[in-house]
Amino acid sequence: MDSGNPAHQARIEIRAGKHRGHTAGLAPGYVQGNLCVLPADYATEFATFCQRNPKPCPLIGMSAPGDPRIPTLAEGLDIRTDLPRYRVFRNGELAEEPADITGHWRDDLVAFVLGCSFSFEEALLDAGIPLRHIERGENVAMYETNIDTVPAGRFRGKMVVSMRPMTPADVIRAIQITSRFPGVHGAPVHIGFPEMIGIGKIREPFLGDPPDLKDDEIPVFWACGVTPQIAVAQARPPLCITHKPGCMLITDLLNAHMAVF
Amino acid sequence: MDSGNPAHQARIEIRAGKHRGHTAGLAPGYVQGNLCVLPADYATEFATFCQRNPKPCPLIGMSAPGDPRIPTLAEGLDIRTDLPRYRVFRNGELAEEPADITGHWRDDLVAFVLGCSFSFEEALLDAGIPLRHIERGENVAMYETNIDTVPAGRFRGKMVVSMRPMTPADVIRAIQITSRFPGVHGAPVHIGFPEMIGIGKIREPFLGDPPDLKDDEIPVFWACGVTPQIAVAQARPPLCITHKPGCMLITDLLNAHMAVF
Repeated sequence: MDSGNPAHQARIEIRAGKHRGHTAGLAPGYVQGNLCVLPADYATEFATFCQRNPKPCPLIGMSAPGDPRIPTLAEGLDIRTDLPRYRVFRNGELAEEPADITGHWRDDLVAFVLGCSFSFEEALLDAGIPLRHIERGENVAMYETNIDTVPAGRFRGKMVVSMRPMTPADVIRAIQITSRFPGVHGAPVHIGFPEMIGIGKIREPFLGDPPDLKDDEIPVFWACGVTPQIAVAQARPPLCITHKPGCMLITDLLNAHMAVF
Repeated sequence: MDSGNPAHQARIEIRAGKHRGHTAGLAPGYVQGNLCVLPADYATEFATFCQRNPKPCPLIGMSAPGDPRIPTLAEGLDIRTDLPRYRVFRNGELAEEPADITGHWRDDLVAFVLGCSFSFEEALLDAGIPLRHIERGENVAMYETNIDTVPAGRFRGKMVVSMRPMTPADVIRAIQITSRFPGVHGAPVHIGFPEMIGIGKIREPFLGDPPDLKDDEIPVFWACGVTPQIAVAQARPPLCITHKPGCMLITDLLNAHMAVF
């Protein structure tokens, strides 16, 4: 069992019920992930969906059926207790928001953990690239696009993207930096022309706060982890359990170790 | 002495006077370079200028004073005979365009070879990114910018850039690809807003042909090897010898070997 690292400490506190809120800012430097738990009947199709859509669905960990552990993400991790809050969906509808899913666990459930933008945002901030939504204490703006994901079985849908406004020099640098992190959404999927990817009104995001895009800035779009949520919602599996937005899984992986070069 | 490779064969033909024209398309896959020969009195300052401005002046080879060989670029290379045509400047003014500079050589001359855009253009084309000026059989559009180079002694001036129009998806990919090639101008210096770098009329380049920039394309600007030529022209050294534009030095280095990762 690992010991002492800040990620492990944060999970212990969460497991003990001492932290029920957002995980942003907890255990800086460690990878946080999106959770999606599905019955085995849907799991292979969802794994295929992730494999075919690695930018919106970067799979960083997966459990064996019925096993709540994912030792490749953290020794001692229990996916049923180590997130601050969960969402339980039945037939695609939100049913509950429990703080523990031990009572929901079944022998046929498979847990998927997907990389999230926290990791590449940390890399951008470390490189001195300002992120407007963080400076303003807001949520990043997200949009549904006209870009089809590659379907897999019952999973399909449009790609959702997040947008960060940047100066041209920062766009070049941000493309370089995020290209190093394919496990956490990687390089942008689009820059410059929102209408080319089906975004009509940049000031009216689908999710998040309206962005502050200045005249000398370029909008930069990354594939977003909301994409698989939409694919799952329309597949309407009898049971699906996710993290509550913002209440992520904190892993023992270092963001720095996600860099491929 | 190397033997048999296409770069070596091309140099042998050029040395023998069998090829006096442009080198574009000769010895595909091999690095071609810009030549700048200066008296030793100016050489240290010019080396410093290149070191301080690596994007417009990527130094890939340098001779010892008085030595016309640069074995790190090619065994057996003679800088005095192995380019198709040269330009001789006296006090900053074009004086001659000889096909051989053996008669001009002196014990105090130092040859500098700088990487050129042919190398990264080959990498872009190999990746399936179309280059409009090549499709149209034109010269790439070049512009003087308001970006100051970092001066070194008598060498100073504005940065010259080349511009290639691309779709947003190709811009992202082109930034990734050219970032791998810092020895041949590397990543773009600007994208998107010509006026931000002092370019008033995109259809009126300083050098090259007027570009064909479409509404759904982004202009992408790379630092250009004309930059050191301007810095040298304003320094007005008593003697400076360069290649004639388009008549480059063909080296034994492979473009593929210029990639840093």
